[in-house]
Amino acid sequence: MMLLIFYLIAITAEAMTAALAAGRRDMDWVGVCVIACITALGGGSVRDVLLGHYPLVWVAHPEYLWMTAGAALFTAFTARMMRHLHKLFLALDALGLVTFTVLGCQIGIDMGLPVTIILLSGMLTGCAGGVLRDILCNDIPLLFRKEMYASVSMVTGGLYMAAIHYELPELASMLVPMGIGLVLRFLALRFNWQMPQFVYRDDWK
Amino acid sequence: MMLLIFYLIAITAEAMTAALAAGRRDMDWVGVCVIACITALGGGSVRDVLLGHYPLVWVAHPEYLWMTAGAALFTAFTARMMRHLHKLFLALDALGLVTFTVLGCQIGIDMGLPVTIILLSGMLTGCAGGVLRDILCNDIPLLFRKEMYASVSMVTGGLYMAAIHYELPELASMLVPMGIGLVLRFLALRFNWQMPQFVYRDDWK
Amino acid sequence: MMLLIFYLIAITAEAMTAALAAGRRDMDWVGVCVIACITALGGGSVRDVLLGHYPLVWVAHPEYLWMTAGAALFTAFTARMMRHLHKLFLALDALGLVTFTVLGCQIGIDMGLPVTIILLSGMLTGCAGGVLRDILCNDIPLLFRKEMYASVSMVTGGLYMAAIHYELPELASMLVPMGIGLVLRFLALRFNWQMPQFVYRDDWK
Repeated sequence: MMLLIFYLIAITAEAMTAALAAGRRDMDWVGVCVIACITALGGGSVRDVLLGHYPLVWVAHPEYLWMTAGAALFTAFTARMMRHLHKLFLALDALGLVTFTVLGCQIGIDMGLPVTIILLSGMLTGCAGGVLRDILCNDIPLLFRKEMYASVSMVTGGLYMAAIHYELPELASMLVPMGIGLVLRFLALRFNWQMPQFVYRDDWK
Repeated sequence: MMLLIFYLIAITAEAMTAALAAGRRDMDWVGVCVIACITALGGGSVRDVLLGHYPLVWVAHPEYLWMTAGAALFTAFTARMMRHLHKLFLALDALGLVTFTVLGCQIGIDMGLPVTIILLSGMLTGCAGGVLRDILCNDIPLLFRKEMYASVSMVTGGLYMAAIHYELPELASMLVPMGIGLVLRFLALRFNWQMPQFVYRDDWK
Repeated sequence: MMLLIFYLIAITAEAMTAALAAGRRDMDWVGVCVIACITALGGGSVRDVLLGHYPLVWVAHPEYLWMTAGAALFTAFTARMMRHLHKLFLALDALGLVTFTVLGCQIGIDMGLPVTIILLSGMLTGCAGGVLRDILCNDIPLLFRKEMYASVSMVTGGLYMAAIHYELPELASMLVPMGIGLVLRFLALRFNWQMPQFVYRDDWK
């Protein structure tokens, strides 16, 4: 199953970028592993807890925990080299975003949920891990302030559901939305596209 | 059902105040919508996840998500006007607090939980959304430092349960505690009532 | 059941240290109680929500909530005295860590989970409460930056599972790993042992 391979690549890539974020905060090895696992697997966990979809992925597949923790420690040991792979990480991260989104939508469809919730299931899977990482690193989540991350996830999920609805062949209904999502994300990164901000200042609280 | 109307007013009001909080942090439109949904619907979600009460409200009623996100975007577009409605928002927010509390207690009663947990169910529904908002905005939750918010919720919930226990008519058993809670909250705001603080300084750790 | 006594001592001690942490942030009495309950009972709650193990401990035993809130308020009133009990708190906290770990592992074993998840169940029970406390106090969780906390929990859990596997007598299989964990923790505190840190700085992102 191609989607599984993409998924494994994606959680590994997420774990590695999370490890670098932990390193920026001088965390110890335990912290690096924990942040990596939460970033890579946390999005799916938030989705499953909110939808009551048990058992969680990593309870059924504990090997994913070892994989992410291992990838994180490997990153910590070879951090100097990682510095040159910035663009590769961004590409893998984008692949992860669209893969997670499609997987999350599939779970929502399997559970027979309403359309809005299927879309949200995809977005939670794609984006919530990064939000948890930012909370644990004591940042305002990047998702809420920059980049087209959530929008790309929404477009990918919407196209995927349209493809399912019009009964496209299974492979095309996954790959076409993922491809469009990837292109969107790369364009957003290349041209620094951003959602408009809402800036508000007042005197009262 | 009058309580449903109060509920819809309350989640709309919560979404609008949350949007203003997001605007103070320069979030983009996605962030504004996410913060609004989490603040308006997060309290009930935390309660449902902790009590194992599935499906969550917004999974069963996805239209609430659109309503809160819509109210948040509307607020972002008309923020200049909102500046003059400060007092109205505080009143709606107080209405939300007592409505959420009574609804949370009802769910605890329906599930046949112990008295302490029913009270807590009401408080979680009333207060947890604001705590999540503050965590996502990278603040120490206001709830823990100021205002009589949690206390008003506790008093409202306690009175509601007493009214149920003494078998008051259904309408009175909801409206009287909610009214007393509202008055308490307004008095707390008017006279700047606060719970005593615990200030502690030490050298170790 | 000796483990129950240790557990009650441990949640009381956790509540008291959490109350002091809340006092350092000038929280009011409500905040002190909430932080205490979350720190003492939050680790087990995170575990139960992630594993789908309902009802949560404090829903089944609401008296634990009153106990932790009571201990926290008592601490706030006698804070001056607490200043001299620093070492006692550290000892009780270490007792809590190993007790929570063993209890968490037992729940994982009862649920028939894979070995990795049993170990994780113990670590979550032992460590997640402190992480939640730090997030609510708006700190980068201490766990990720210092001390051998998570490592002690992992060693204790691993030894406990080895003892179960080799069918040691029940009492010994709990007490020996807990004793070794305690000694490790005291040595780590005494000699200021730390996990190696991963420090990473870059220009991009």
